Amino acid sequence: MSRIGLTEFSEILDAELPIAAMLGIRTEDIQAGYALLRMPYRPDLTRPGGTISGPAMMALADVAMYAVVLSLVGRVELAVTTNLSINFLRKPPTHDILAEGHVLKEGKRLVVAEVELFSARDDGSRDLVAHVTGTYSVPPLA
Amino acid sequence: MSRIGLTEFSEILDAELPIAAMLGIRTEDIQAGYALLRMPYRPDLTRPGGTISGPAMMALADVAMYAVVLSLVGRVELAVTTNLSINFLRKPPTHDILAEGHVLKEGKRLVVAEVELFSARDDGSRDLVAHVTGTYSVPPLA
Amino acid sequence: MSRIGLTEFSEILDAELPIAAMLGIRTEDIQAGYALLRMPYRPDLTRPGGTISGPAMMALADVAMYAVVLSLVGRVELAVTTNLSINFLRKPPTHDILAEGHVLKEGKRLVVAEVELFSARDDGSRDLVAHVTGTYSVPPLA
Amino acid sequence: MSRIGLTEFSEILDAELPIAAMLGIRTEDIQAGYALLRMPYRPDLTRPGGTISGPAMMALADVAMYAVVLSLVGRVELAVTTNLSINFLRKPPTHDILAEGHVLKEGKRLVVAEVELFSARDDGSRDLVAHVTGTYSVPPLA
Repeated sequence: MSRIGLTEFSEILDAELPIAAMLGIRTEDIQAGYALLRMPYRPDLTRPGGTISGPAMMALADVAMYAVVLSLVGRVELAVTTNLSINFLRKPPTHDILAEGHVLKEGKRLVVAEVELFSARDDGSRDLVAHVTGTYSVPPLA
Repeated sequence: MSRIGLTEFSEILDAELPIAAMLGIRTEDIQAGYALLRMPYRPDLTRPGGTISGPAMMALADVAMYAVVLSLVGRVELAVTTNLSINFLRKPPTHDILAEGHVLKEGKRLVVAEVELFSARDDGSRDLVAHVTGTYSVPPLA
Repeated sequence: MSRIGLTEFSEILDAELPIAAMLGIRTEDIQAGYALLRMPYRPDLTRPGGTISGPAMMALADVAMYAVVLSLVGRVELAVTTNLSINFLRKPPTHDILAEGHVLKEGKRLVVAEVELFSARDDGSRDLVAHVTGTYSVPPLA
Repeated sequence: MSRIGLTEFSEILDAELPIAAMLGIRTEDIQAGYALLRMPYRPDLTRPGGTISGPAMMALADVAMYAVVLSLVGRVELAVTTNLSINFLRKPPTHDILAEGHVLKEGKRLVVAEVELFSARDDGSRDLVAHVTGTYSVPPLA
């Protein structure tokens, strides 16, 4: 069972991670070791060429990893990214971006997660547009 | 000599990369294969724990790589990130972040760059807070 | 259908990639966009602590990516790695390591692949021990 | 001052990391947070196309990072790589490869290092052929 609820996680984003609201990132599901987030299309998320910008996609992926981590360790806000590696696979058209993250390894000090970013079509289908792996460092409990 | 000027690069950001303005990213210098950018501290750039958020730093690094790439290939707006890898080294306090990027390899199709992110103290000194490498794909000229 | 056969790929390794034989790497299956390789346990593959060494695992992953790439583009030996990123998840005990690779993106110039490395138990079960993503650059055909 | 000597580090490689000897890797210098290693050219280090193979270069880089880490924490053999990311920049000709590593961050639990790989020409000059960053996890002292 997830150690953090969808509502509680969304409240953390609203209260303490303004960039998530700035980009319109929404959390749709959190399970233990799993999270699904959405960044609805907006014209100001684009980059030259009219596709979704890399920074917006990286932000979404990082927030999705944070959700995966808190689903495992609970409300440990000081869990921080130690590294993140992203491969951009296809130029995403002007649609919503979905992020689906899951845990690869849950250690005492490090959590490694994988996030897939999809371009969501109106008909419900989706295309993989980027692949992300990253590590969060979890501080020891006081 | 840089194949794009500071003013022209800033105009591209203003006109076509809204996330750069959203985060207050400013370009301070562009030379051939080199760029220096600044993201002035603002309260809405923080994350839980009161440090600068990872997404804001990744955005700054990606824009710095874009500047390095355009300094080499000129106004080829469709140059796109193919991958980016970031190591977060220290939690940055609530100061400006500087990004200093330089080219590692200039190929015909791929440009590899390295970006160092620094926390800028008021006294002018700075501390390395993150290290980034990434690759841009440059489309063949028509 | 794979554009290279298992026998032909094994011959390339034997003739032109001596490090593969040095480490005992064997190719077990190649399909279009997919490859399965095995590195049987040997005492000289270990590192301090008695687990399989990182370099041996990285070599296996890179060869698996090469197999995935040649399965898509055929015998283009000059396809080369442009980058590789590996997360080590668990210390592998002294068993065989399996590498299962598949394509994430097949572009004209770049192929991105993901490789999972597993520790293979005697009972046939296996544990994920490392996760790899990487990009190969494919030269234009003459 | 380095917390491990050149002789002691070389002994660890000889006794417990057979792949280093298999590839002919030699340690030339260790200082606190710094290491210089060499992999002399041998025909069996090549790959299709006649350049030095990626796995050989990754192995050299990983051993160089290990030297950097032990220079800081002393003989903690169970320090292990948690991730490594490499960008291959130029195809190295059939010369020795040098690895120059230095620390980016020394934390209590994680050490982040950067390694540059150079192709060493006979005239003493050298060309950057690959760039590596990686993280080692250092176990708490008993």
